[in-house]
Amino acid sequence: MTAGLPEANPGLDWLDASGPHADIAIATRVRLARNLEGRRYGSLAEADDREQIFAEAARAVHRACRPREATLLELAELPRRSQRILLERRLASQELIGGRAPEAGAGVAICPGGSLSVMINEEDHLRMQCIMSGLRLADSLRLASGLDDELGEMLPLAWHPEFGFLTSCPTNAGTGLRASVLLHLPGLVLTREIAGTLRAITQVGLTTRGLFGEGSEFVGNFFQISNQTTLGRSEEDLVDHLDRTVLTVIAKEREARKVLMRDAGTITEDKVWRAYGLLRYARTLDYEEMMNLLSGLRLGISLRILPTPSFYALNRIMIFTQTAHLEASAASAIPPEERKVRRAVRIRRILREER
Amino acid sequence: MTAGLPEANPGLDWLDASGPHADIAIATRVRLARNLEGRRYGSLAEADDREQIFAEAARAVHRACRPREATLLELAELPRRSQRILLERRLASQELIGGRAPEAGAGVAICPGGSLSVMINEEDHLRMQCIMSGLRLADSLRLASGLDDELGEMLPLAWHPEFGFLTSCPTNAGTGLRASVLLHLPGLVLTREIAGTLRAITQVGLTTRGLFGEGSEFVGNFFQISNQTTLGRSEEDLVDHLDRTVLTVIAKEREARKVLMRDAGTITEDKVWRAYGLLRYARTLDYEEMMNLLSGLRLGISLRILPTPSFYALNRIMIFTQTAHLEASAASAIPPEERKVRRAVRIRRILREER
Repeated sequence: MTAGLPEANPGLDWLDASGPHADIAIATRVRLARNLEGRRYGSLAEADDREQIFAEAARAVHRACRPREATLLELAELPRRSQRILLERRLASQELIGGRAPEAGAGVAICPGGSLSVMINEEDHLRMQCIMSGLRLADSLRLASGLDDELGEMLPLAWHPEFGFLTSCPTNAGTGLRASVLLHLPGLVLTREIAGTLRAITQVGLTTRGLFGEGSEFVGNFFQISNQTTLGRSEEDLVDHLDRTVLTVIAKEREARKVLMRDAGTITEDKVWRAYGLLRYARTLDYEEMMNLLSGLRLGISLRILPTPSFYALNRIMIFTQTAHLEASAASAIPPEERKVRRAVRIRRILREER
Repeated sequence: MTAGLPEANPGLDWLDASGPHADIAIATRVRLARNLEGRRYGSLAEADDREQIFAEAARAVHRACRPREATLLELAELPRRSQRILLERRLASQELIGGRAPEAGAGVAICPGGSLSVMINEEDHLRMQCIMSGLRLADSLRLASGLDDELGEMLPLAWHPEFGFLTSCPTNAGTGLRASVLLHLPGLVLTREIAGTLRAITQVGLTTRGLFGEGSEFVGNFFQISNQTTLGRSEEDLVDHLDRTVLTVIAKEREARKVLMRDAGTITEDKVWRAYGLLRYARTLDYEEMMNLLSGLRLGISLRILPTPSFYALNRIMIFTQTAHLEASAASAIPPEERKVRRAVRIRRILREER
């Protein structure tokens, strides 16, 4: 489907919604930032340095995955659209693909199995990440740490006895860990408890962001919760603290949904079914409206108001209706109005497969 | 279905959308106002007078319909809900059923065949009306006049050589004729040509009203066009003038729809399909929202954007989701919020029958 990406959907295992609490916790992500000793970081690194780092890192990931085959992508060799597809799948960052083109040596290595990948020459030399369905922080950390250990045996990782792992930006130093969970919280939004909940999350030292990272709006009632500090505590501690907080938020969300069904059952059912009707029949949909309608559907399936579609279908819609994905199946650039039409076509196709 | 109404749907033949231009011209109505000589009119009439008039008129309609059976309804003998059902079917007027209860002798006689009926002791002693699907003014006038002739042979109708038929309100004197056509004009509304069109209609001596009579809003893009004068011209002239004007409006509406599809095809298709999705899946709908969504559907079927439902289904939805009709099938009064839920259920049932 995607030019330059050999597997069908590498790195998208989390779409299957198989993890615990996957009706509310869409995905767990654990990221470890590492750098190679004696090499220049970030903007100080020359093209030569970066290309050497890419070659070494790719080779190390390749070996770590054996006997299975890793997907090694040097971004500059991919069509721009494939780079943007990696971005839309959260396998590459905006910084990695660059404003107009990626810098030399920027790359992505995707491990077979679908959860683990590595961004190479992003802000740090290596950013390993593990993305899993549902709330699976400990598992994600275990997988990411396993890869970290293997790469650490092959590559000289920069580490300081006092500060821990050294990173390009000091806020990431120490564990180099960023763990986050993407939550769908329509119950807390509709019962107006969300502001208090977000405040409480901040007070325990965690941060909240929208679907598209820092400063983004809370489109579709999606909220990312993640750790802020990376220094002075163990990875396990950081992840455990996040895990307990997320479990509390999930419990509050379930409670809010009960209240919603008890006090506004008809309104909620109406909202859910209308969202289904519009997604199934609209002929033009912008991404934001679609995300808000998907939120209604996700709530409806979770509350068993609707029998179908599956969470898997909802996750696929969320990813495959983004601009670069739509353009990849059209095999050409699409003007914005036409994009909304193709998005509606794609949604109908996915929903039809489910009936 | 309706307590006190012997036939299933007497007087609702027009629902079948079988008439010419029925995609735009929902229904044609011709009404003839008549009074009995030597009897007091309207507010001057005592209960005794009115009851005698009901008995005489009912007997005359009964004879005129033979050998088939007319439906003769004295409103005071019907449950209030059945009176309101007659109102919702336009077979009785608000004046006839009264604010709290009908006055003595108020009644409706419905001829077998489904087009002709007579309101008895409304503003005038007799108001014959013929309602037909589509644009069928000449046919409706012919049927109403036929009944008028037959009743005129049995009853002494008040007639003045100079003024023609005498009526309670002088504006109806002469022919006693009111002819009107209910038009669905979304094309002219969406292309913003409607204001000019309505102005032109007024300039040729006709009046325009909403679905629910004088002063009502233009809910669902429905417009009633009717004659204003009843005196000094023949019935045929009045009806012919209206007929030609309506044909012009229908042609303009068809032209506007072409422009719409040419210049805003996607937006129009989207509007139509969204209306279908909402009507099919919403769990609560108020009458006005429903009428606006039905307008989208009607346009979509007319333009062959949608294959189903039929105009018949749309007409049934329009009539059978009104309050008294909903209460009749629930066999009890329904609070407003619950009514919206039952309306949505009824709509889904009718749409399901069509698939």
